[in-house]
Amino acid sequence: MLPQLTLYTAKCCPFAQRVEMAFSETGIKFSRCEIDLLKKPDWYSRVNTALEVPALSYGGSSVDPSRPSPDSIILTESLVLVELVNDLSNNQLLPSTLTPVQRGKARYFMTQISNKLVPAYVGTMFKGESADRILTAVDAIQCLLPAEGYLLGEQFTMADIVAAPFLARTKVVLSIIGQNVSAAQATLNTLETDDKFSRFRKYFDDITGRESFKTTYFEDIVKADISERLKILATQAEAGRLN
Amino acid sequence: MLPQLTLYTAKCCPFAQRVEMAFSETGIKFSRCEIDLLKKPDWYSRVNTALEVPALSYGGSSVDPSRPSPDSIILTESLVLVELVNDLSNNQLLPSTLTPVQRGKARYFMTQISNKLVPAYVGTMFKGESADRILTAVDAIQCLLPAEGYLLGEQFTMADIVAAPFLARTKVVLSIIGQNVSAAQATLNTLETDDKFSRFRKYFDDITGRESFKTTYFEDIVKADISERLKILATQAEAGRLN
Ligand SMILES: N[C@@H](CCC(=O)N[C@@H](CS)C(=O)NCC(=O)O)C(=O)O
Ligand SMILES: N[C@@H](CCC(=O)N[C@@H](CS)C(=O)NCC(=O)O)C(=O)O
Repeated sequence: MLPQLTLYTAKCCPFAQRVEMAFSETGIKFSRCEIDLLKKPDWYSRVNTALEVPALSYGGSSVDPSRPSPDSIILTESLVLVELVNDLSNNQLLPSTLTPVQRGKARYFMTQISNKLVPAYVGTMFKGESADRILTAVDAIQCLLPAEGYLLGEQFTMADIVAAPFLARTKVVLSIIGQNVSAAQATLNTLETDDKFSRFRKYFDDITGRESFKTTYFEDIVKADISERLKILATQAEAGRLN
Repeated sequence: MLPQLTLYTAKCCPFAQRVEMAFSETGIKFSRCEIDLLKKPDWYSRVNTALEVPALSYGGSSVDPSRPSPDSIILTESLVLVELVNDLSNNQLLPSTLTPVQRGKARYFMTQISNKLVPAYVGTMFKGESADRILTAVDAIQCLLPAEGYLLGEQFTMADIVAAPFLARTKVVLSIIGQNVSAAQATLNTLETDDKFSRFRKYFDDITGRESFKTTYFEDIVKADISERLKILATQAEAGRLN
């Protein structure tokens, strides 16, 4: 029997969506506790002192999520949690029928998402960096894809899960920033229409077409959250200029 | 039967030592090809366009390492290669007899090495940053250790492998920089004598006492390499000042 599992999560958060997709793909049941990141409840520091989502309470008895049982263990870091869900599901997200090289390719792809796509997304979203870097990252990712299918072909794996929430939000960020910054709009147009990225577009449609993606992605909430954060950042920058 | 395995490596490199430790622990045989990082052979770009070590050629026939067989696949990234060696060894480096929570703890520990210790080491070594950050990183790592033994107690795992080469080199860097910079010497003294770090010191002795560490760590070469790199950086900084 599976242990008690409570996921502290937020619909806007790409890291958390990875874990929700992993649960959805494997069919493992969990309790979901939404944390409002812009207005975190005080009790959340008892769950995760780093005040981040995702966090998973594992084991112990089922209790009010604001008072996790002392018998439960709190685990964090989206990649750790995706691997954990994989373990609990007998490797459904990286089957042992794959060859060691295939598993190596999946793991290498995840390092590229962490080292290239995530920093490009964070840079564009939070640091006002040029959106070009997103094209470089997407190109590096596209180069790793086979002619068709998911990263490993027919088998959908944790590698695709780790990528999907960031690829989806990257497009949203570009479209919102693109309303004011023509370079961001140009980057989005390139991703959406340039022949160079046609393989990427097919992959994007494939992974965002999975049930596990569609049932864990809430575009309106993501858009509202990104707009709100960009507004806060603009206000802070403005205040900085006036000082 | 195991495939052909050739590791492109360098005795000075902490990332590469991880993979050599993984091979040593599992007893998997491989060919070793030392790359001089300060004078890389031209042919190395055919093996790894990123020009980094470690890189592993997997499969294909055994050939001169400077001309890897077209039937072999080149894999890179130390964490990916450690996981691959684990796969090839039927999970000797993260046994399936461990609980999912234990495996989660091992993976979380590895994220902390990557996100805290490695940047602190790189910052001190290559960017002239204050050595304090090393204490913060070591403290974060120490907090994750059980009262005794390796990260997971008696079982030595890939988590310990991922940490060991960096912990060893961190001390070497501090002692070399400490010859001129008293703050670095003070950081080293704290690590080596302060009561606060006694648990860390025991852990350090345990992991660096493993045969797999001792047979893959060459202190003289590491010292010479770090001194040489610090000299190059100092010359570059001096040239920058004169411009
Ligand atoms: N490395 C973490 C990153 C998690 C993270 O950064 N989560 C963000 C939300 S997307 C968060 O909780 N930030 C704290 C905040 O918004 O106050 C992981 O992979 O899980
Ligand atoms: N992320 C890589 C990093 C590898 C790396 O940075 N290796 C260094 C040597 S320690 C390297 O080859 N640098 C290129 C050079 O020295 O020219 C890994 O984990 O394997």
